[in-house]
Amino acid sequence: MGTVLSVGRVTSRTPVLRIRGAQHTTRPDTVAAEEPLEIRLDGSPLAVTMRTPGHDFDLVHGFLATEGVITSPADIAALRYCDSVDAEGRNTYNVVDVDLAPGVEAPDTALDRNFYTSSSCGVCGKASIDAIRTKTAYDVAADAVRLPLEVLLALPDRLRAAQEVFDKTGGLHAAGLFTAAGDLVALREDVGRHNAVDKVIGDGVREGRLPLAGHVLMVSGRASFELTQKAAMAGVPVLAAVSAPSSLAVELARETGITLVGFLRGDGCNVYTHQERIELSS
Amino acid sequence: MGTVLSVGRVTSRTPVLRIRGAQHTTRPDTVAAEEPLEIRLDGSPLAVTMRTPGHDFDLVHGFLATEGVITSPADIAALRYCDSVDAEGRNTYNVVDVDLAPGVEAPDTALDRNFYTSSSCGVCGKASIDAIRTKTAYDVAADAVRLPLEVLLALPDRLRAAQEVFDKTGGLHAAGLFTAAGDLVALREDVGRHNAVDKVIGDGVREGRLPLAGHVLMVSGRASFELTQKAAMAGVPVLAAVSAPSSLAVELARETGITLVGFLRGDGCNVYTHQERIELSS
Repeated sequence: MGTVLSVGRVTSRTPVLRIRGAQHTTRPDTVAAEEPLEIRLDGSPLAVTMRTPGHDFDLVHGFLATEGVITSPADIAALRYCDSVDAEGRNTYNVVDVDLAPGVEAPDTALDRNFYTSSSCGVCGKASIDAIRTKTAYDVAADAVRLPLEVLLALPDRLRAAQEVFDKTGGLHAAGLFTAAGDLVALREDVGRHNAVDKVIGDGVREGRLPLAGHVLMVSGRASFELTQKAAMAGVPVLAAVSAPSSLAVELARETGITLVGFLRGDGCNVYTHQERIELSS
Repeated sequence: MGTVLSVGRVTSRTPVLRIRGAQHTTRPDTVAAEEPLEIRLDGSPLAVTMRTPGHDFDLVHGFLATEGVITSPADIAALRYCDSVDAEGRNTYNVVDVDLAPGVEAPDTALDRNFYTSSSCGVCGKASIDAIRTKTAYDVAADAVRLPLEVLLALPDRLRAAQEVFDKTGGLHAAGLFTAAGDLVALREDVGRHNAVDKVIGDGVREGRLPLAGHVLMVSGRASFELTQKAAMAGVPVLAAVSAPSSLAVELARETGITLVGFLRGDGCNVYTHQERIELSS
């Protein structure tokens, strides 16, 4: 029995030898689906990301927005699955072609999931941070939103409660967009954290809601430079993570005006930057 | 007080507002360092990865090996930090230039952290898997190593015991290479799981030990397609992860002959493929 994959499914079934102490059983198990998605611009390959199928158009919008190519749904003239087929002639639904609207400039080099810093100035975190600060269209630092601590502390449970797949496979990262009152706006799951974030932001792009001012972006894992970059590009003022941030995430958050929260779990958290947005009293 | 970064340091210090119940304290905290590393081939930029500084030459060797560019230390004629400098004129140690040995072919397109599948056949997992199977120089399926279950179950504790930084920051992934007797050969940590794996494999390349036949690669997080691909490219017959595998990781492991173990913790694990290598009796 091979792994059973269905197009667009977020999980698949596979046989597994399950060992728990002296008990050894073979049975089918659910794993998170992972397949490549190729994004094409006007027919030319732009990027491939390994993602969990589903919400692919959100992913494409979010990817293009956080790379600085688009800021609104009007920037995309057309979006469709290509007729890519597998060996059996079935559409793979793994290739999306984008036509940009007239006047929207395509990036002049192949984009990379890793932000590509200019090689002319030496590669350092400072150069990357300066590039992001120049690139984002929004003044995140000016966002006057205030977030009561009790709202912040309630987010992990709300994110977990809204997750559909995590408990079945243990293999998906989640990203959720919340209002400052703690209401969930959008939740997306993916084998890749950056994809989950792109899908949530892409949903906001498609709804014409960028910049995502006054909102909180909550992620299930760690806070890296890349995720902080995406928050800055989408105009999100608060980024909260269940686990640890990296040094460059802290630096980028500080310099772009993002409130960065880590280790958000139980009755506590660490606030690394711009703590003025967190209302401690009450 | 800003984040204090030192070149080559795997952690940095930053002030943090620590909230635990009613206790709110501001104090310095340790976070995992993350900085860009640019890899150049004969002076031309090839790739940028966000990594934790340290073991950079291992990272470069491992990256080039798992992308199919090199298989032995002799394939690299020279390797050095470029004179990249930051705004204060200090070397960033974030750019490494590689001269390939005569006869070693440079890749003809920019490499991407995400394996770039051929767009001529439709993008599907199958195409990716076929590409890896063609690309790896080693017959992993023929590896006759046997691994006693008790050795396997002891690996997470051994990995954790060997980790230097994790307990301080909670922000680093670990990858460890073990013998079939459970002895640790190499351990590397990084903010990126793929970097930790590249560093471990790169250490093997530099020591002239590829293929890593008869070994177990253990990772602290999940098992993705990308990590399984790296194991296949390095000739590792057993890949074990603390958390869940993805569907494409399972498929790739099955077809390249890798024993894929997930949820390896406590007294149990799940064996997804090629369970014949795990000795259950005893």
